[in-house]
Amino acid sequence: MASGVFDLLHLGHVKFLEEAKKAGGKNAELIVVVARDSTVQATKGRKPVMPENQRLALVESLKVVDQAVLGFEEFDIGDVIDRIKPDIIALGYDQEDMEEKVREYVNKRKLKVTVVRVGKFGEDELSSSSKIRQKIVEKFAR
Amino acid sequence: MASGVFDLLHLGHVKFLEEAKKAGGKNAELIVVVARDSTVQATKGRKPVMPENQRLALVESLKVVDQAVLGFEEFDIGDVIDRIKPDIIALGYDQEDMEEKVREYVNKRKLKVTVVRVGKFGEDELSSSSKIRQKIVEKFAR
Repeated sequence: MASGVFDLLHLGHVKFLEEAKKAGGKNAELIVVVARDSTVQATKGRKPVMPENQRLALVESLKVVDQAVLGFEEFDIGDVIDRIKPDIIALGYDQEDMEEKVREYVNKRKLKVTVVRVGKFGEDELSSSSKIRQKIVEKFAR
Repeated sequence: MASGVFDLLHLGHVKFLEEAKKAGGKNAELIVVVARDSTVQATKGRKPVMPENQRLALVESLKVVDQAVLGFEEFDIGDVIDRIKPDIIALGYDQEDMEEKVREYVNKRKLKVTVVRVGKFGEDELSSSSKIRQKIVEKFAR
């Protein structure tokens, strides 16, 4: 299982998901939880550029993804883990807070879940949705 | 065969490619030609937001795509057709000029190539790279 917002889909997202799937070994099935607009609004103070249904459909259209689902309106990582029942949870380089919450829940419930951290892929300026937004604003806002 | 810039990949792109593949019938193989940065610069007067290698890799990562290749530096639709040798060329709703050039070349060379036009998918404000850019500028340029 991997999760994220996946706004303005870019190569960094795809590489993250490919590494997440690799972490599951041969025949792994990758289930991706796509954050709700309401969750992003609550945590970042603004909605994503692309609405949740489009982000979900785009993630689902990737070769590496076996299944994509939307998160819960009232986001709780414990609920997500209980629903998906993953063997492995892969977290991205920028998901430190999430890792802490995941480990806490897994330990508390004594679940057999492996938590892995997946690295950052190069320092490319465009492997980040916020940097893509920034480039667009610089280029087109006149 | 389908072609395009595929800057800021969105659901409209994916649906266009799905329709293009459907036009080829069962067992169709979809080859996508991704426009070079230099071609976009020459035709639109500016480079895409995402560089060609990232656009290529992202298109290639889609389930619907069997193969993705970059166009020629000196773009010529005839060269592309000669290289790919497609049975069917699918053109999007916004590729009118391209359709004319394709038909001209196919007729001149008497090629057995079917040219199909694939429709627009809803009037969603975010099924267009330029509208996504516009939304980002409106939201974030302060």
